[in-house]
Amino acid sequence: MSDDVGQKKGLTRRGFLKSAGGVAAVAGMAAGVVAVGAREGAAVPVAMPKKWDQTYDVVVIGSGFAGLAAAIEAKNAGASVVVIEKMPVHGGNSIINGGDFCAPGTRLQKAAGVEDSADLMYKDMMKAGLYINNPELARILADNAREAIEWCEDYVGAKFTRLNFHGGHSVKRANQTVNASGSELVNKMLAKAKGLGVEVRTRTKMERMITNKDGRVVGIEVKTGYRYPDEKSGKTAYIKAGKAVVLTSGGFSNDIALRRIQDPRLTEKFGSTNQPGATGEALLAACMAGAMDVQMDWIQLGPWTSPDEKGFGHVPLFCERLVGYGPMIDPATGKRFFKETGNRKERADAIILLGHPVIIMGDSYSVPKQVFPNALEKGLQNGAVKKFDSLEALAKNYNIPLETFQKEISRWNSFVEKKKDDDFACMIFPDAKPTVAPPFYAARLWPKVHHTMGGLVIDKNAQVFGFSLKPLKGLYAAGEVTGGIHGAVRLGGVAMADCIVFGRIAGKNAAKETAWG
Amino acid sequence: MSDDVGQKKGLTRRGFLKSAGGVAAVAGMAAGVVAVGAREGAAVPVAMPKKWDQTYDVVVIGSGFAGLAAAIEAKNAGASVVVIEKMPVHGGNSIINGGDFCAPGTRLQKAAGVEDSADLMYKDMMKAGLYINNPELARILADNAREAIEWCEDYVGAKFTRLNFHGGHSVKRANQTVNASGSELVNKMLAKAKGLGVEVRTRTKMERMITNKDGRVVGIEVKTGYRYPDEKSGKTAYIKAGKAVVLTSGGFSNDIALRRIQDPRLTEKFGSTNQPGATGEALLAACMAGAMDVQMDWIQLGPWTSPDEKGFGHVPLFCERLVGYGPMIDPATGKRFFKETGNRKERADAIILLGHPVIIMGDSYSVPKQVFPNALEKGLQNGAVKKFDSLEALAKNYNIPLETFQKEISRWNSFVEKKKDDDFACMIFPDAKPTVAPPFYAARLWPKVHHTMGGLVIDKNAQVFGFSLKPLKGLYAAGEVTGGIHGAVRLGGVAMADCIVFGRIAGKNAAKETAWG
Repeated sequence: MSDDVGQKKGLTRRGFLKSAGGVAAVAGMAAGVVAVGAREGAAVPVAMPKKWDQTYDVVVIGSGFAGLAAAIEAKNAGASVVVIEKMPVHGGNSIINGGDFCAPGTRLQKAAGVEDSADLMYKDMMKAGLYINNPELARILADNAREAIEWCEDYVGAKFTRLNFHGGHSVKRANQTVNASGSELVNKMLAKAKGLGVEVRTRTKMERMITNKDGRVVGIEVKTGYRYPDEKSGKTAYIKAGKAVVLTSGGFSNDIALRRIQDPRLTEKFGSTNQPGATGEALLAACMAGAMDVQMDWIQLGPWTSPDEKGFGHVPLFCERLVGYGPMIDPATGKRFFKETGNRKERADAIILLGHPVIIMGDSYSVPKQVFPNALEKGLQNGAVKKFDSLEALAKNYNIPLETFQKEISRWNSFVEKKKDDDFACMIFPDAKPTVAPPFYAARLWPKVHHTMGGLVIDKNAQVFGFSLKPLKGLYAAGEVTGGIHGAVRLGGVAMADCIVFGRIAGKNAAKETAWG
Repeated sequence: MSDDVGQKKGLTRRGFLKSAGGVAAVAGMAAGVVAVGAREGAAVPVAMPKKWDQTYDVVVIGSGFAGLAAAIEAKNAGASVVVIEKMPVHGGNSIINGGDFCAPGTRLQKAAGVEDSADLMYKDMMKAGLYINNPELARILADNAREAIEWCEDYVGAKFTRLNFHGGHSVKRANQTVNASGSELVNKMLAKAKGLGVEVRTRTKMERMITNKDGRVVGIEVKTGYRYPDEKSGKTAYIKAGKAVVLTSGGFSNDIALRRIQDPRLTEKFGSTNQPGATGEALLAACMAGAMDVQMDWIQLGPWTSPDEKGFGHVPLFCERLVGYGPMIDPATGKRFFKETGNRKERADAIILLGHPVIIMGDSYSVPKQVFPNALEKGLQNGAVKKFDSLEALAKNYNIPLETFQKEISRWNSFVEKKKDDDFACMIFPDAKPTVAPPFYAARLWPKVHHTMGGLVIDKNAQVFGFSLKPLKGLYAAGEVTGGIHGAVRLGGVAMADCIVFGRIAGKNAAKETAWG
């Protein structure tokens, strides 16, 4: 923005402002407040707009679970509220998620006779997070998850009808929406928010956060009519946040540049299970306005995804039901290379270290027994799962050295027979049988980026914390854009609880913020 | 700084500048350039000084290995250079380190017949770093470490006389200074720098980085006559960096507030092996000027330190020679709790999870055999190591339940006899004997913070990278203040190589930077 102007060295601020009038990009700016630019140079101060195009008490960035929860609460607390969304459709990753909401002591748990407590959920989260979670935030999440799901049911009207289990939890506590998708909750929250008078604008992308001379966040610069991913599309506008901005822009699983800095292994060789807009520019814009980031290098990969289909796909459901029944093979050697029942991180790390996709396989006993017919059929249809009449045919297809492979399958089968894996200590389930009966089924596995645990530091009020080691006035955040709640590992089904609990806190507190002018 | 002024809402920039004249804190400021404040509020823009108190081409912050290497190279490239140091003495952590410089293919390795290569050192670093190291930077370090130590020997005149081994390295490659201390190199570099005409100022603390309207770093605000840790001491001054600032301010092992955000376990319950000034305010000031941080949550603890002595102390030398010979006991239960020969991180995590100090112990066979007499004597003198006539006396002193303890020692002794630990798979060394012969020796262990792997993102030129995802003009960095080179774990003896290699690169490139005005 001011890069052109900046070339004129030695300009005083006064001179800069005077000359700025002649530069198109800076037109409409006046003195007194600065904006900090994202991705357009370093912390570049830009004068605030002469005129704000719109004014709201609370400006929410992002229209997923956290953003909509914040918007509803802020509106109910008396604030005027706008929700902006850069994509052409609302809902972000939330609308494509599986709809599992972990909470302790829920109605579904009671109906199923599952004993659970906030304490137990907290302990599960801390253990999975390798105890580097922010304990205060994890506690708030666990303590408020039940009330949050009841708010979703009773106030929003979302339906949860089935109880699921996710690895790392001590009990079944994932309450699944009636359509096994986050869309049930997103769409009902959206209707509720609109009914309350919240404005929701798609194709509106935040470009910068605007801070005043105290460093208080006072509004944002946006592009309206933005057409993802065309960075030249859209028209600049300024939205004033009379009370606060709430950032709920999600994670950065699809931001290759940013994730490579944090975990250099995660090059373009890795896809993502996320929607394409899951990039980090809004998070970085907040950092440029003084917000502190934390634990950004903890990026979760799913080891069960396939390079032969897009996004999450069907192979995860094939793979995860087969581990403990069939072997995982490195096609370069024809041998097993890691414990099939290892956790997400261990398995993903092992595959990445090999540097190429591996194979998960089963036979005519294990596959029909374990894999949901629907997942198998869809995987076969899109070609990510393949069917073979013989081990020879399977080996030929994946270019596996046949002799070593046959020996390794015999070795695996001997472990299955004695129910003990001498090589990698894989759990072998009691009903597992040797992999001998054709047809054989196989799929290639290569990890995809699934969730970014790190993000902005927030306090118990969901207020963003700055590099100043103080709360950053005028800025709240919730959901995947924040960091520290899950520590090293975010457990399955906890993202929804995180978004609703902290989204609501952020919305309430944003509405209570003192107006700045 | 401008907080007071900020209270007057709605001031235009022009009005702000006018009124600023009347506010003491802003006196001396003029328009055109802003500084971003550290620890005094959020990214608060402050006008640049009317007048710079001093001007140098290159301003180096920190007087350890990296800072002095940068200063020497910048000076030799023709720049005028100042080194500022906030503490009353120069040298930071470098001057109290053990003087081990890891490099492949060194003179000492050749004399000892050790075969080594840059490739092997690179592989060791990546493996220890769990492969989240920035591979380009790790490669540069490994490739240039040998030339760097030869520069220290031949140009600086530092003496390295002994070859040591550190865990995680494939070969002996730690070249130890003649006095087993970093002071050998620090003092000789300091003399060299001064001889070349580099100014070195102690008690001078950087308060803010000053950036111009393009976001270029143009100088710093300092406190001269600063008396650590009195934040009210000292007088404000402005130092212009005509070409660049080089930040070599070290890690933040002693910064409780900052490390708690990154790894919430690391409360005030944890001491540090570092010098007291190892805090993060300079790193944070850089972030507030737009610099990006990375992997800040990887904070290395020494599991071998004692809460009964200050700093590094003598117990590490007692403990590390005893593992594999004597047991580590949880005094609360009287039982062992973890593999004594586990790595630093595993052991520290296990002790932290217990939540209280543990005991390492040996007897009259293992202790005199393994522990350097000097370390034992000093530990006994300061009371951190204790001597007991019987197991009963030992148990009584540490409040260990006697019966369980005695059983556990018998169990340990049975493992030592068969050279196989059935409980925790501790390595038991061939010459280990059962722990039976009084007197017994013991020390309490509680981890201390030793090294912060994370820090500012730099590129191959040691230029700092911004949240803009672009290099930040006018700012270079090297040493522990940077992040990503070591990934998850910094191996012993690699810090010196890191500081000299990247300090020299930073200094050369800072001197080559185009002057800004």
